[in-house]
Amino acid sequence: MVNINTPFTADASALRLPQPYLLFLGDTTEAGFAKTAYGLRDWAPDKCTGEYALPEATVSTGLPALTPAEAHARGARSLLIGVANSGGVIPAIWVSALIEALEAGLDIVSGMHVRLADVPGLAAIAGKLGRQLIDVRHPPAGLTVGTGRKRTGKRLLTVGTDCALGKKYTALAVSQALVARGLDADFRASGQTGIMIAGGGIPMDAVVSDFEAGAAELLSPDAAPDHWDVVEGQGSLFHPAYAAVSLGLLHGSQPDVIIVCHQPGRTIMLGSDSYALPSLEETIDLNLRLGARTNPAIRCAGLSFNTSHLGEEEAIAVMAEESRRLGLPVADPIRGGDQFARLIDSCLA
Amino acid sequence: MVNINTPFTADASALRLPQPYLLFLGDTTEAGFAKTAYGLRDWAPDKCTGEYALPEATVSTGLPALTPAEAHARGARSLLIGVANSGGVIPAIWVSALIEALEAGLDIVSGMHVRLADVPGLAAIAGKLGRQLIDVRHPPAGLTVGTGRKRTGKRLLTVGTDCALGKKYTALAVSQALVARGLDADFRASGQTGIMIAGGGIPMDAVVSDFEAGAAELLSPDAAPDHWDVVEGQGSLFHPAYAAVSLGLLHGSQPDVIIVCHQPGRTIMLGSDSYALPSLEETIDLNLRLGARTNPAIRCAGLSFNTSHLGEEEAIAVMAEESRRLGLPVADPIRGGDQFARLIDSCLA
Repeated sequence: MVNINTPFTADASALRLPQPYLLFLGDTTEAGFAKTAYGLRDWAPDKCTGEYALPEATVSTGLPALTPAEAHARGARSLLIGVANSGGVIPAIWVSALIEALEAGLDIVSGMHVRLADVPGLAAIAGKLGRQLIDVRHPPAGLTVGTGRKRTGKRLLTVGTDCALGKKYTALAVSQALVARGLDADFRASGQTGIMIAGGGIPMDAVVSDFEAGAAELLSPDAAPDHWDVVEGQGSLFHPAYAAVSLGLLHGSQPDVIIVCHQPGRTIMLGSDSYALPSLEETIDLNLRLGARTNPAIRCAGLSFNTSHLGEEEAIAVMAEESRRLGLPVADPIRGGDQFARLIDSCLA
Repeated sequence: MVNINTPFTADASALRLPQPYLLFLGDTTEAGFAKTAYGLRDWAPDKCTGEYALPEATVSTGLPALTPAEAHARGARSLLIGVANSGGVIPAIWVSALIEALEAGLDIVSGMHVRLADVPGLAAIAGKLGRQLIDVRHPPAGLTVGTGRKRTGKRLLTVGTDCALGKKYTALAVSQALVARGLDADFRASGQTGIMIAGGGIPMDAVVSDFEAGAAELLSPDAAPDHWDVVEGQGSLFHPAYAAVSLGLLHGSQPDVIIVCHQPGRTIMLGSDSYALPSLEETIDLNLRLGARTNPAIRCAGLSFNTSHLGEEEAIAVMAEESRRLGLPVADPIRGGDQFARLIDSCLA
């Protein structure tokens, strides 16, 4: 492995997206497909100037409807494709709107599978106008292998019993809570939606394995001693498909603190029916054991439960019971309250 | 992670190289740069028809010197670049020899950093002649995420306390020993030199992280119940740069048996001066714990020591002492002998 040099030569840095955004809704008629736009409205309202939709669209974020030219005049710097469709493709009916955005002075940001540069004609027009086409699913060039060197500043990583149960949400809520307490904190995004919200980051699951820890090192660089990087976790060390992503991110992030994310009642790993979810104790223990390799001082501050499927009383009872059993704070960041305040206290202890 | 689809659409399979090879030595004058050619001569002599070198070269493998046309007449199917240089580039002085090989009916196989298709003119000539340009550093297209599904057949994976201490060598020696005992066994290559020796495989460190376990699943597919796949390990779960590669390979290989590879006396991780080597006990324990996720029956058959830097007596004493201490066979496959026979017995126990 040490003989494998990077195929890139440029110095790498995390992606940086031009903000604020004009959210593009295409011709979408199903609210479910506009998840990205809603997420940006909810988590980064100050970075969203307005929305732009084709006449066929019926969904709306409730933000002001603006043309690309109007949005640019109000400070927008990119058109962000805020919708998905089942194929992850860019339909021909969207293309004239994308060109209109480029001509209005906006870059284009996309999380679709297809690369913007592969949309016929788009790259030529962007090149002529000096505009950027940014695909957030694709990692930056110039990534290298990790060094394991201890970096300055403090780091928190959200980890999980499984995929898709609140690691991004928890990291966003924790970074907001730290800032609300007057601390210097940044959310560090490791997946495409998080990258759009943060305005930058690295899509860790798309990074070549040999560079996975190195990319994580780049994602949370040296910082002031009292600065917190709150890193969005990915996957699970227990997932038979994605553990490599989780371990590279854990090693490279060298977190001082982890929060274990879980959805009470989930018993089977997502997409892998024959795999049981690990216990919370196992999840804490394995993350601490592996994380100690690059940060011997790693500790678990508590747990974040996604209780959106439970009623208020039941959710509170489940969290209280697990908190008592494990001797750690357990909170649902969406519900907030005293439990969440205790979880933040524990992060800072 | 589960929302990230593969950017590829074709069905994937491991790389397959056209054999036998004509080993190309370029204009090499330093034996150290011809390591790949020597490795092929030593490990795959039946797959090497001869060697071909420019007049400037002073190194030789001792195999017959053949022109591409002569080699093709004797059955060779590809020219394999058997040398490296510090930049990993293909010098202009080599190009006419590569073209000569294409014209003689040989494909070209390379492990250089630069892609063969990026050598000016080469792709056009290969296309015209219907010849293949194969870069073994680059994974096959069509890789997908792992499933964790239990596969048929038996699997052995070599793992290590560190990089570059004999995982490939051990896997080759073990697969040869199994065949010598009349068993049905295949060496499964996960790095470029191993791929050239085996005539196929997947360069696991170049695979996108999300597909790492899936690629390992593809590398050792379903097989007959008594068939052994002996999988070449990569890196170390304890390496701060490469553990993601090691874990994806461990999960996807779902080995029944591991052999822990080590170099006695090595105390510091390669390329990471501030990281101490893990103990043998820790290495066995962590590999078994993580490997049990996809194969609960995983066990450690013993250890393979690289003792090339020690005298015979000292090597034997070190291995005997560690074998006693750990209660497991310890052998150096290069030295072979009773110790190695006991290690193979233990694999089959």
